[in-house]
Amino acid sequence: MAVKNTEVKGINPHIELALQEVEKRDINKVFFVACGGSSALMYPSKYLMDREAVAISSDLYSSNEFIHRNPNTLGDKSLVILCSMSGTTPETVEAAEFARNKGALTIALTHEPESPLAQNAEFVVEYGWFPDLIAVNTNQAIMIQLTMGVLYVKEGNKKFADTVESLHNLEDVFQKAEKQFAPKVKEFAKKYKDESNIYTLASGGNYGPAYSFTSCFLMEMQWIHSNAIHAGEYFHGPFEILDKETPFLILLGLDETRPLEERALTFSKKYGEKLEVVDAKELDLEGISDSVKGYVVPAIFDRLLRRYAEALAEERNHPLSTRRYMWKVEY
Amino acid sequence: MAVKNTEVKGINPHIELALQEVEKRDINKVFFVACGGSSALMYPSKYLMDREAVAISSDLYSSNEFIHRNPNTLGDKSLVILCSMSGTTPETVEAAEFARNKGALTIALTHEPESPLAQNAEFVVEYGWFPDLIAVNTNQAIMIQLTMGVLYVKEGNKKFADTVESLHNLEDVFQKAEKQFAPKVKEFAKKYKDESNIYTLASGGNYGPAYSFTSCFLMEMQWIHSNAIHAGEYFHGPFEILDKETPFLILLGLDETRPLEERALTFSKKYGEKLEVVDAKELDLEGISDSVKGYVVPAIFDRLLRRYAEALAEERNHPLSTRRYMWKVEY
Repeated sequence: MAVKNTEVKGINPHIELALQEVEKRDINKVFFVACGGSSALMYPSKYLMDREAVAISSDLYSSNEFIHRNPNTLGDKSLVILCSMSGTTPETVEAAEFARNKGALTIALTHEPESPLAQNAEFVVEYGWFPDLIAVNTNQAIMIQLTMGVLYVKEGNKKFADTVESLHNLEDVFQKAEKQFAPKVKEFAKKYKDESNIYTLASGGNYGPAYSFTSCFLMEMQWIHSNAIHAGEYFHGPFEILDKETPFLILLGLDETRPLEERALTFSKKYGEKLEVVDAKELDLEGISDSVKGYVVPAIFDRLLRRYAEALAEERNHPLSTRRYMWKVEY
Repeated sequence: MAVKNTEVKGINPHIELALQEVEKRDINKVFFVACGGSSALMYPSKYLMDREAVAISSDLYSSNEFIHRNPNTLGDKSLVILCSMSGTTPETVEAAEFARNKGALTIALTHEPESPLAQNAEFVVEYGWFPDLIAVNTNQAIMIQLTMGVLYVKEGNKKFADTVESLHNLEDVFQKAEKQFAPKVKEFAKKYKDESNIYTLASGGNYGPAYSFTSCFLMEMQWIHSNAIHAGEYFHGPFEILDKETPFLILLGLDETRPLEERALTFSKKYGEKLEVVDAKELDLEGISDSVKGYVVPAIFDRLLRRYAEALAEERNHPLSTRRYMWKVEY
């Protein structure tokens, strides 16, 4: 199971280094720890762990919740994976130190390899950022590669080679998807630019992209009221909000929870009118192995939803960089 | 550690019976499985497990997500705790059968001991419902007693006796809290009856009451737009929605994540104006042991928030029983 000299080609070198240490350690639990969009991108990895892990359990927490909750099982058999683009998110920087003091192995994902987060973690995996960004180096792709890699070295998971190869083919998929969705994205922005509320709906690993679109793009960057509704929970309360006036953006992924998303869409079509559907079945996924399609689709959703947000920002004349509080006032 | 003939007095007899079986089994994982409000009431138990469990891991899923996600670790060393008031929630009824077929031990909480859910599970714990309801028999109190009981019989957790005794004293606390909050509740309803959006904010185990107030009371029963924002995540996106026009209901509990809720409140006070604060520090908690206060407070929040919802319904002339879809159309 050694990571080097294996049949798995094209592993990210930072991930390879981290996995060599993971392999040596006795790990029974993985904690995914980050805030906001960086936390959202870990949802597909939590889903992957739940589906694939034979014995390793996992939990996902917002960084400050992780610190204060102080899980009793956190210790020297824990692997803590953290993420922050700038590497300066105070709660995440602190969480790395907190976890290390408990004896956990820490791996930080960041765009800034010299940042405080990088310094606080034992291993650093650098990811790309706009504009010099190709799919395999996005934080989403890096997360999936790392998580599947952990299961490969610890439990012999057989999908690691497929995962790495698929992620190397992802840039083409991104570009085709963006091109295909461009007219739809533009129309969405024109249609909904004056809305005060836009909901999102998804399940499984796709809940991550829905959550980040809601929290980071709609609420943070556009000041539009929103809520990322879990497609299964929809029918146990939230669906009563549906009417012909309220827009819903509904994700249909390819993981095993797709029937939940389809059910939410079917119902919404009956009683709602302002529905935007992003269906992974419509995408050309050439190069992405069937065995990992469900895990990779959220990364494509993240990319497409960024385009939705950019178009909305333009139509609304409200740049994505506009803030009232973030980075501007004390909090 | 035998449940019978122990120093712990006043254990609910249904829970006692279930715990005797839990004690015999080799359990390494607890799954909390339910929908909507019944799922929300399990959040404090997930928090309790994270804080207290020495070795048993846990996960919480909406019932249909649980079935389709099909966690790889679900098996004969799993305990699956399910809940549905009527015992007829189709996804939860199916989840019980699904879990049993995987060899898991299943315990169902329900108000209807003859219901399909009760029939599908190996053990049934009945809970009370309005109007004949005392605190110790509420679903919230039953959940906490059961969860702490599991840790008592499996890991020798020392807080079980305190928990059971505290829950027997909870009715007095409920009544005092309701009386104390009555004027505040009325004022809230008058002030915010015409609002189209009301957010909730909480962390730790208190996220459960926030989530059910958002999903079941505001969105489902009042058709008011909402989102239960995690108090730690607030600063990584959602707080940008805060202005002087948008109401926020902020919970301040007594568990270890209280600093997150306090930070959210401090910030909201600076830039918001329509804030409703429910602070457990203001309550008379006589009879509730310090060792378990943080775990019990969400049950008190649930009770108080029901009063908030009732008052809002009255002021808005929109009864809590009003539905457009639930139980009325196919879904």
